[in-house]
Amino acid sequence: MKLESLDDLFVHHLQDIYSAEKQITRELPKMANATSSPDLEKAFTKHLKETENQIKRLEKVFRQLDRSPGRKKCKGMEGLLEEGASLIEEEPEESVLDAGLISSAQRVEHYEISAYGTAIAWAQLLGYDEAIGLLEQSLEEESAANEKLNALAEGGINQEALEPASVE
Amino acid sequence: MKLESLDDLFVHHLQDIYSAEKQITRELPKMANATSSPDLEKAFTKHLKETENQIKRLEKVFRQLDRSPGRKKCKGMEGLLEEGASLIEEEPEESVLDAGLISSAQRVEHYEISAYGTAIAWAQLLGYDEAIGLLEQSLEEESAANEKLNALAEGGINQEALEPASVE
Repeated sequence: MKLESLDDLFVHHLQDIYSAEKQITRELPKMANATSSPDLEKAFTKHLKETENQIKRLEKVFRQLDRSPGRKKCKGMEGLLEEGASLIEEEPEESVLDAGLISSAQRVEHYEISAYGTAIAWAQLLGYDEAIGLLEQSLEEESAANEKLNALAEGGINQEALEPASVE
Repeated sequence: MKLESLDDLFVHHLQDIYSAEKQITRELPKMANATSSPDLEKAFTKHLKETENQIKRLEKVFRQLDRSPGRKKCKGMEGLLEEGASLIEEEPEESVLDAGLISSAQRVEHYEISAYGTAIAWAQLLGYDEAIGLLEQSLEEESAANEKLNALAEGGINQEALEPASVE
């Protein structure tokens, strides 16, 4: 598809986010499984449910616009998730892994915050009022998920990673 | 290197950012070259200089810690930059390309804002006072670059992409 207009770019961008969210639903269970922190596991599991809803919202937007979610793969998210996966493979000390998982997940959230922010700005210009509301709900969830991760890091997980020997 | 401590994770994380910044210096000239907006070209060129300085700051931190920047490749940034590169390859209408380049560059900035934010939090816990100041300078530049891109998008580039036919 040749990108001739902001409308084309908007759909292209939503297809990218759609692929990103799909990829995230495959990685979050692995991250929830890898952590030894019950709070972090809970945060990942909660965000998995939110992500599934975000996918449904995107499908709703595609239906409203009478466009297809397509099959393109979001390379950006693929790379971001690979980073988290390779951290797990390295088998770090467990509190160090938790701190690293949060860091990795926060980069994913920042990607999405940026991507939804752009989508909302474009939807506003394009006058896609129904889409704006749906995208804003997802943006709020991503921001809240990022804040939650921050609170977990600062609320003890970073400190445990600082002195893993004393915790064991 | 087995990640046994927050110190190991911090170095691992800085090596990742270092690779990310190096990759960015290779892509920014292509983005500056691809845009037809003089303001956006200027923003990319300015950020290239900043990125070169950020690399020097990271090298300084590695020297302070007596560690090596290493040779690992940041997969996350690789994927993010591939997205921008493939947008250019698609040869969109020029104002649409500009809007897309900004969107792509903002996801890169958000990655870095998140990555430097984590690095600063860990440097504070580790008591690496000299590193904190250097990392904070880079974080401020990334935030300012992101704001600048936002201002360019909202200041006309998105609007031009909305009605490319009327602009030509």
